[in-house]
Amino acid sequence: MKDMKNNKNNPIEVLRLHLASEMHSVDCLINTYMKSETAPIISKLADHLINAGGKRLRPLLTLAAANLCNYNGTSHVKLAAAIEFIHTATLLHDDVVDESLQRRGKPTANLLWDNQSSILVGDYLFSKSFQLMVEAGSLKVLSVLADASATISEGEILQLSAAKNINTDEETYFKIIDGKTAALFAAATKVGAIISNMDETHVDALTNFGKALGISFQLTDDLLDYTGFEESLGKNIGDDYREGKITLPLIKAINKSSGDEIIFWEKTVGKGVQEPSDLKQALFLMKKYGALNDTRHEAIIWATKAADHLEIFPECEIKTILKELTSFVVERIN
Amino acid sequence: MKDMKNNKNNPIEVLRLHLASEMHSVDCLINTYMKSETAPIISKLADHLINAGGKRLRPLLTLAAANLCNYNGTSHVKLAAAIEFIHTATLLHDDVVDESLQRRGKPTANLLWDNQSSILVGDYLFSKSFQLMVEAGSLKVLSVLADASATISEGEILQLSAAKNINTDEETYFKIIDGKTAALFAAATKVGAIISNMDETHVDALTNFGKALGISFQLTDDLLDYTGFEESLGKNIGDDYREGKITLPLIKAINKSSGDEIIFWEKTVGKGVQEPSDLKQALFLMKKYGALNDTRHEAIIWATKAADHLEIFPECEIKTILKELTSFVVERIN
Repeated sequence: MKDMKNNKNNPIEVLRLHLASEMHSVDCLINTYMKSETAPIISKLADHLINAGGKRLRPLLTLAAANLCNYNGTSHVKLAAAIEFIHTATLLHDDVVDESLQRRGKPTANLLWDNQSSILVGDYLFSKSFQLMVEAGSLKVLSVLADASATISEGEILQLSAAKNINTDEETYFKIIDGKTAALFAAATKVGAIISNMDETHVDALTNFGKALGISFQLTDDLLDYTGFEESLGKNIGDDYREGKITLPLIKAINKSSGDEIIFWEKTVGKGVQEPSDLKQALFLMKKYGALNDTRHEAIIWATKAADHLEIFPECEIKTILKELTSFVVERIN
Repeated sequence: MKDMKNNKNNPIEVLRLHLASEMHSVDCLINTYMKSETAPIISKLADHLINAGGKRLRPLLTLAAANLCNYNGTSHVKLAAAIEFIHTATLLHDDVVDESLQRRGKPTANLLWDNQSSILVGDYLFSKSFQLMVEAGSLKVLSVLADASATISEGEILQLSAAKNINTDEETYFKIIDGKTAALFAAATKVGAIISNMDETHVDALTNFGKALGISFQLTDDLLDYTGFEESLGKNIGDDYREGKITLPLIKAINKSSGDEIIFWEKTVGKGVQEPSDLKQALFLMKKYGALNDTRHEAIIWATKAADHLEIFPECEIKTILKELTSFVVERIN
């Protein structure tokens, strides 16, 4: 698997170089909009998260989609910044909800400041994203992002309801990741196509590309939570298991378990009663039933779907990078 | 002082009767938009708060402003519902931030469910308000509401930073209430004027009316926290004092205190070390220095300003009710 940040040949870095000047404008806009004269703590807290080495994959996708559609205006920069703000707001609220202590290898904002600040700064960033979208001036785009925001919240709430429920099925899991990840990926690429005035077929193709890429991305994230290396991930292995977060590797293992194994899942995930050594047993069962390989296979299927949706676009450099990105997303190690 | 809910002669009730058919449409829209097929818990939690006997003053203000401007479209209903959703989302997050146990005489959602659900359902309602605004179809209105949302968050964050700081000055207090209350009141009336295509003078007049009414409303709220009756308020007296929330009655009393009195404030508010009997001493000092009367006087000044801003509108029934509302807001007991 490939390192996401350090490998200069990775498609995200290639994309970033290819779109360097527009991405620089996005960064400037982000830094301008996260300032608040009224409440200086906002800038500090937002800066901690925004400039802490995030991949900025979502804004890159908006710029890339616009580039693929030969867009030549300036709205894509505003929308890319808006999308990064929605993402950051979601992360701030997620870390409070999950009581997370680490993100991207650094202490979370809720740990450094407090939950209250994380909630309110999340709200502030969401408002700022809203201002940026309005500035972009397209009601159609605003509608897409309003719908995506609602879907994101629904996904997060569904995930909260499913926590510790070992009867959660794959259909529910896919609804959750559609909300928490795929909806914003899809919106990021869709708005790039919309502002470029593409026809419905091309808008749909880029939407479906974003959605499939997002699903593949989240499946890989959920897999890495069990199979990654802590140093490169910047978080602990088995966090999902310890929090009782129901992801595909777990669902697939539980579905094939029986007898004492079910009792083990019920105790450690359902009731959340865990010994440190239980993670090893969980991983043993996941391997025994091929749950990790099956999840990886599923991630590859979605990555392939993502690449296929790009086929209707003419060959060009950005298309090549985006296709490489679909493979990279499942091969990465962080 | 007048009971806000039970007195059928109160201007809010008169307004509600006057705008009954449109308000019914707002209620229907609210009930439709707060449903989620993906995550049923949303409807339950939102219903708890939305249908728990709130005054719905903000959506009424949007309808009233539109009515005053002879608006004859349907967007005002969508915007009124959107504004109530923003308000409800803010309340849900506030109750988590303040760790409140009671609102409107009932247990808060964060107590009945959990903080996580309150955060995420707040996000969901904010997204739904965003969808409703987009449906109303005016970029100018979207811009007003995006700006208001950012100002609200800034006010809340400033309030959090000022908590327990007994050196907070009146200027900071007014910035806080401008954000947490006046911004949404002002936006509620402003959008009613904008969708009615009023000229700048009339848009400004209705904006300033909303803003002044909001300030007067919040000043009265902060006063009632020390002078109200628990049964009619639906919450405990002295909550702000116990939480170290710095409001005008406290600032005015602290400003005139000296010697042991300052030590008392520093201990009970600054350090948050309180005996149950300290509230009595706090009230004694507030009365000694006229802080409660001065706050009430300030509330009346802002109510008068609000009424004055309506003067440029021709006499009509809705104008009369809105003027009565400005007096009522400072005379209410809950």
